[in-house]
Amino acid sequence: MKVSIVMGSISDKEISGKVIKILEKFGVDYETRVISAHRTPYKALEFANGAEENGIEVIIAIAGKAAHLAGIIAGITPLPVIGIPAKSSTMDGLDSLLSVVQMPKGVPVATVAIDGGENGALLAVQMLSIKYPELRKKFKEYKKEIAEEVIMMDRQINS
Amino acid sequence: MKVSIVMGSISDKEISGKVIKILEKFGVDYETRVISAHRTPYKALEFANGAEENGIEVIIAIAGKAAHLAGIIAGITPLPVIGIPAKSSTMDGLDSLLSVVQMPKGVPVATVAIDGGENGALLAVQMLSIKYPELRKKFKEYKKEIAEEVIMMDRQINS
Amino acid sequence: MKVSIVMGSISDKEISGKVIKILEKFGVDYETRVISAHRTPYKALEFANGAEENGIEVIIAIAGKAAHLAGIIAGITPLPVIGIPAKSSTMDGLDSLLSVVQMPKGVPVATVAIDGGENGALLAVQMLSIKYPELRKKFKEYKKEIAEEVIMMDRQINS
Amino acid sequence: MKVSIVMGSISDKEISGKVIKILEKFGVDYETRVISAHRTPYKALEFANGAEENGIEVIIAIAGKAAHLAGIIAGITPLPVIGIPAKSSTMDGLDSLLSVVQMPKGVPVATVAIDGGENGALLAVQMLSIKYPELRKKFKEYKKEIAEEVIMMDRQINS
Amino acid sequence: MKVSIVMGSISDKEISGKVIKILEKFGVDYETRVISAHRTPYKALEFANGAEENGIEVIIAIAGKAAHLAGIIAGITPLPVIGIPAKSSTMDGLDSLLSVVQMPKGVPVATVAIDGGENGALLAVQMLSIKYPELRKKFKEYKKEIAEEVIMMDRQINS
Amino acid sequence: MKVSIVMGSISDKEISGKVIKILEKFGVDYETRVISAHRTPYKALEFANGAEENGIEVIIAIAGKAAHLAGIIAGITPLPVIGIPAKSSTMDGLDSLLSVVQMPKGVPVATVAIDGGENGALLAVQMLSIKYPELRKKFKEYKKEIAEEVIMMDRQINS
Amino acid sequence: MKVSIVMGSISDKEISGKVIKILEKFGVDYETRVISAHRTPYKALEFANGAEENGIEVIIAIAGKAAHLAGIIAGITPLPVIGIPAKSSTMDGLDSLLSVVQMPKGVPVATVAIDGGENGALLAVQMLSIKYPELRKKFKEYKKEIAEEVIMMDRQINS
Amino acid sequence: MKVSIVMGSISDKEISGKVIKILEKFGVDYETRVISAHRTPYKALEFANGAEENGIEVIIAIAGKAAHLAGIIAGITPLPVIGIPAKSSTMDGLDSLLSVVQMPKGVPVATVAIDGGENGALLAVQMLSIKYPELRKKFKEYKKEIAEEVIMMDRQINS
Repeated sequence: MKVSIVMGSISDKEISGKVIKILEKFGVDYETRVISAHRTPYKALEFANGAEENGIEVIIAIAGKAAHLAGIIAGITPLPVIGIPAKSSTMDGLDSLLSVVQMPKGVPVATVAIDGGENGALLAVQMLSIKYPELRKKFKEYKKEIAEEVIMMDRQINS
Repeated sequence: MKVSIVMGSISDKEISGKVIKILEKFGVDYETRVISAHRTPYKALEFANGAEENGIEVIIAIAGKAAHLAGIIAGITPLPVIGIPAKSSTMDGLDSLLSVVQMPKGVPVATVAIDGGENGALLAVQMLSIKYPELRKKFKEYKKEIAEEVIMMDRQINS
Repeated sequence: MKVSIVMGSISDKEISGKVIKILEKFGVDYETRVISAHRTPYKALEFANGAEENGIEVIIAIAGKAAHLAGIIAGITPLPVIGIPAKSSTMDGLDSLLSVVQMPKGVPVATVAIDGGENGALLAVQMLSIKYPELRKKFKEYKKEIAEEVIMMDRQINS
Repeated sequence: MKVSIVMGSISDKEISGKVIKILEKFGVDYETRVISAHRTPYKALEFANGAEENGIEVIIAIAGKAAHLAGIIAGITPLPVIGIPAKSSTMDGLDSLLSVVQMPKGVPVATVAIDGGENGALLAVQMLSIKYPELRKKFKEYKKEIAEEVIMMDRQINS
Repeated sequence: MKVSIVMGSISDKEISGKVIKILEKFGVDYETRVISAHRTPYKALEFANGAEENGIEVIIAIAGKAAHLAGIIAGITPLPVIGIPAKSSTMDGLDSLLSVVQMPKGVPVATVAIDGGENGALLAVQMLSIKYPELRKKFKEYKKEIAEEVIMMDRQINS
Repeated sequence: MKVSIVMGSISDKEISGKVIKILEKFGVDYETRVISAHRTPYKALEFANGAEENGIEVIIAIAGKAAHLAGIIAGITPLPVIGIPAKSSTMDGLDSLLSVVQMPKGVPVATVAIDGGENGALLAVQMLSIKYPELRKKFKEYKKEIAEEVIMMDRQINS
Repeated sequence: MKVSIVMGSISDKEISGKVIKILEKFGVDYETRVISAHRTPYKALEFANGAEENGIEVIIAIAGKAAHLAGIIAGITPLPVIGIPAKSSTMDGLDSLLSVVQMPKGVPVATVAIDGGENGALLAVQMLSIKYPELRKKFKEYKKEIAEEVIMMDRQINS
Repeated sequence: MKVSIVMGSISDKEISGKVIKILEKFGVDYETRVISAHRTPYKALEFANGAEENGIEVIIAIAGKAAHLAGIIAGITPLPVIGIPAKSSTMDGLDSLLSVVQMPKGVPVATVAIDGGENGALLAVQMLSIKYPELRKKFKEYKKEIAEEVIMMDRQINS
């Protein structure tokens, strides 16, 4: 199982770092790419077109502003595409969110929260766990872990 | 393979109808439920808790306004949850969208466009096609079909 | 009389601190909990389900982003639930506000201003003062106090 | 127990009708007033100032646009004030919502959803049920009722 | 000729400072008040009710969040009321702006830009100059001055 | 005393109709113009430049979308300029409102509510009443009238 | 001189009709295409890649929702690309506008108003008139025409 | 070939600096002006009226808040006008964007992203390259350059 993480710009590296941390925790193989839908459209096409053949099973695209990267890749590949809208210096993330989520009929992008690196990765894990039972198992443990963290905080605050 | 379509209210029936049409086209088995996160929280819990065991592989939740349904289900089940924000009589869908997509770290909801019934279903198909090659094949054909429709319109307008 | 303050995350601690300061000023008994609607849904259920029996009379829920905590608790308990939307790093609080206030018919959440810790607590005091005349008396004194502060500032600026 | 329903304008009558329907269902006594914070400020003052003495226990204020009614009443009375933002012909209810909910420190308004007549009334019932056990009992039955409605719809859709 | 500058809170002092600077430049007499529509409603009433008699000709009200100050004063006094929406820690000034400008039929507030202290003062000068020709003359000179500043910058950048 | 009502387009006629109705009620002389800041910039300049000399004391400008009319006129004339943002087919009036109210330092526009024809006119009356005592008197009567209307509705609803 | 009008969907036909009307008025040759960035990405690529060679000098792209069409074409062609955001059934055009205008550094899209068919065409004419003096001449006449229309309306309203 | 860069205020200098850097890179002659639509309307008129005669072929206008500069210039000159909305201290750039882009029928402004200095300049280059083949050639090289940068980052991140 393999996930491809695609950033529209190197400035999205902090978000991709969060994606990677989760994928490594779950033992999911991944590749990291910097591809711009606008500055390297042919690379985007080539990437999206070859992704399935190259063994990729889920694509995570991170982009900001008029964030077309996820949508363009989703237009080409049959693979599920997860979009992470990245907040930039204006509009507080609303431009990125709407550009990623409001896709027209026929070409969905699975959108997560603005700057939501971890959730983008976790959604990929959930998708893959449809096929890979070991990931499902790990995901259940992860759910327990994050519950434990909250329960611990609940205890601390009450002691 | 089986998808569960959950509406927060019977008023979301039009959107669920679009979901069903796509799932049937792809031969994906489904069930349709009306469960409210707020009015029937125990049902929501029971449903989310039992979904995996009941053979469900993907959940599609449709809700409007302060749309908590997808998020609550996602908090319980390890299955991937797709959220379709439904536009209601105020705020033009923005309230539903933000309530569905802005999920906190740890619990993603795969959000599609406001009122995006077809895309919710297609995303489910894409997720399932990670495991089921026949769905991948059908999805590729579907992509050709919708491309053909556009190409046809392009021809008509130029003749 | 007892109020339960529930935070969706330990990051909401600054707001709960403001709530506590007001409740202590009014001599209202309280408990503080960290419970996540998404990461500890069963705890949320258990808490909401037992609150009335445990002597709680008003619940104050603080959460940010797709803030479902107040709404989920309100779906279970018959107690009045006050929601304080917490501003997070994107969308300037609008996502939290809409997720808390736009509740569907049948399950209200008494929403106060974004990050409005003091007002959440004061609203709880007002609700309780329907039953407890001593709180009503204190609240009237509080109203005088804050009026005095403004009047003092008015004097200072004019001297 | 008595609730006062105050409209900023006769155009808010449809919303007050929803409030009344719920209050009557719960057997809560009420009065209906048309008072404008801007056009009849002295009436608003007089009303807010006398409400407690006149036996009112909760005030529900309905207003649209730059909706100051709830806030102004809350500035005067020690009673809890519920604000229902009314959608008008521009801004899709956002102006009303923000004008009602974003109250400054010291003077909370318990805000419900835009045009949320039923929820305004239900919140009043919840507040009153802190003191009146019979209302609490009725509210629990109401919760069962609305749950039943959803369960019924769930059954119908599956038969 | 006399202008009254009313702040809803001492935190609006920076904006009132800008107002004062302009009024002093134009030689317009003023008073500065701190009056809260919510915390000191009777003071607000008293002030608004007495303003005309006290020789005030224009009122400038500065307030943030659910900014009701200008609207409430305008509901009472026949004097023209200028509203300056003050940006607070959430919603980037939109809540203040909508609360000030979206006044219902019958009670206008002359709204200027968010945090627009200077423009609030200049608008007062323009209003007064309907009656006082010497202010009109000064205002024309002011217009020349600010034009000169721009022209100077235009020259500098081109030399 | 004379007011000039300037529309950016004949499509703003409904709003100017409301302005006229109020001005006639108050016996304020007026002229009605259709001048576009964008399509007839020289006319706008000529108008704004000559307004004072032509005996105009207040200008009311009505425009929608990127509504520059009020701002441009205010840049030229020393007269107070009232801006009425007109809602058009997209953006629910927000574009017009922000284009009118967010004027830079030095050039205020007295902005009223979106589509607020009556309030634009009433603000003009209030400005003029600084100079003309008879208008002040009429305005006070008007305030009584609109109060009476509310009081009447209050009575009707309670009989 | 030749302009290519590209619609993302046949539902944008009304807007393209407005574009055509203007182009024909100015005698600018054009072609009309229906190409979807998401459903026919290869066609989009092929079109954008060949446009310059095929004698196209300006491209006008019309699309709604997460409107990527203009941006994707601009990523490939060196020709100037004009983007017309089309309002769809939710978000009042804001999603389309932000998706078209907020392009990242390096790949501009010349954006006009939401649903602004005429202005998209007029901008194309203005761009072409840099090279073609006869278009500049016609554009000046057009400016006179639209000025005349306003002047006529101004006269009518005053007679 | 010559471009005129017009700032509404010296505070827009950072953005104009980005414009200049691109124009110099492409060898496009330019002038820089500081002209305010509101504070120096006659200068704006004079500038816009004379631009074509003075050999200007494209105008780039930079302004914030109620940004009328681009629109006013476009109302006068037949030249294509590019608008760059500048983010100011409130509303996160939305006010500037809507004031620039939502131009009425007949007078387009070619709008680029908020604070998008580089893209404003690049759009000017694209417009000019309709006439000047050498600019087209340079623009194609620029496209290669920015593609190379992305490709380099893609390599670095994978080594």
